[in-house]
Amino acid sequence: MKKYQIIAEQLMENIKSEKYKIKLPIEDELVEEFQTSKNTIRNATDLLVEWGMLYRVQGSGVYIRQFEHEKAINASMIRGVSQEFKASTVRTEVVYLELVDADEVMASELDTEIGNPVYRLKRIRYVDDEPFTIEYSLYNKEIVPYLGIEIAQRSIYDYIEHDLKMRIGFADKYISVGHLNQEDAEVFGYQKGDPMLVINEKVFLTNGMLFNSSRVIHNYQETTLFVSANNHRRL
Amino acid sequence: MKKYQIIAEQLMENIKSEKYKIKLPIEDELVEEFQTSKNTIRNATDLLVEWGMLYRVQGSGVYIRQFEHEKAINASMIRGVSQEFKASTVRTEVVYLELVDADEVMASELDTEIGNPVYRLKRIRYVDDEPFTIEYSLYNKEIVPYLGIEIAQRSIYDYIEHDLKMRIGFADKYISVGHLNQEDAEVFGYQKGDPMLVINEKVFLTNGMLFNSSRVIHNYQETTLFVSANNHRRL
Repeated sequence: MKKYQIIAEQLMENIKSEKYKIKLPIEDELVEEFQTSKNTIRNATDLLVEWGMLYRVQGSGVYIRQFEHEKAINASMIRGVSQEFKASTVRTEVVYLELVDADEVMASELDTEIGNPVYRLKRIRYVDDEPFTIEYSLYNKEIVPYLGIEIAQRSIYDYIEHDLKMRIGFADKYISVGHLNQEDAEVFGYQKGDPMLVINEKVFLTNGMLFNSSRVIHNYQETTLFVSANNHRRL
Repeated sequence: MKKYQIIAEQLMENIKSEKYKIKLPIEDELVEEFQTSKNTIRNATDLLVEWGMLYRVQGSGVYIRQFEHEKAINASMIRGVSQEFKASTVRTEVVYLELVDADEVMASELDTEIGNPVYRLKRIRYVDDEPFTIEYSLYNKEIVPYLGIEIAQRSIYDYIEHDLKMRIGFADKYISVGHLNQEDAEVFGYQKGDPMLVINEKVFLTNGMLFNSSRVIHNYQETTLFVSANNHRRL
């Protein structure tokens, strides 16, 4: 990570801990606080403007965006349920975890060859004992060489980053709405045909390798997704 | 806009027009093409990495993200229906547009005072003659001084940017799922109680002023939302 990226993360921490509230301290104070150049401070704040965390008002300073729904899930971030609900009790039921040869559909989902080894996995995540998501996931074993029940009961992303030392880079998420089937509806205590909120996601390492494809069905009554949109992306 | 931001937009144009395909040209070629410094090129590509359009592979170069669902709506951008579906015929029915005094709910929605003037608006947007969204919107008249039927039949955002010369900055979007009521269901040709995909959004000028609050109900069978997530936002 570059210097300005590290400082951006430290600025974020200070915003989260409410060291800074309405606006950031002036540039000279930040230069002093972080013992770095004006240019680095400016690049760091530019980055947080890009992330939608700050905005600039000419002649007045750099302001902190105020977000309302504390409980909404930020869809622009890659975070598992465990990380999203740090203040809650997250329990994971691994319904199945098996190593299979990729069929045509799986191969296409993971952008790999038919017959290649793939971990196929179904988990139900409970937040404070309420069923929150049903995850149907595929992991490319050629990239993630091992997955076991104990890992799947916790955070697979943490395992990949901390134990396998691989860097998760980015994800494409497609959000859509349909109708629950009998099996999934029962998990949530709903009726077959009730609304289904589903996120289809592909997750890549920083080097662009696709290692995970998931279909995550959310408990529609318990889920609000948050997205911060920026207009300079209006290309 | 800064130099590197302008170049970032030009790079995006070249990606969209497929002048660059799998990866970007090497830095030296871009320096030559844009007649600028290496540093500016690097800041521009950094920005597009942030936006989730590019990714770097060490020792190999800068790659272009390949997106699958051409028809999905990018929820990380502020774009009206008109801009999102340039290739299609977009028709707008203005159901009502009225100037009212803000009641308690409207005042709270727009973060203004009770009694202040507010435009209240309902529109149905059709894409290729299919009903696509039902929008319930509020605009703060103290910021957007005039709205008329003719403007509302086209793109209100274009009017604000091009005619009023104000700069739209960012938006908070909250995506959730519920059940359609009778009135909205009829617009889409669905049944009361069928799934409803709703985006509640607040839209701000670049100076942080909230000018628009909307509740946009999407035709759930016709909508896929796309979000590009980045892991360096994992804070």
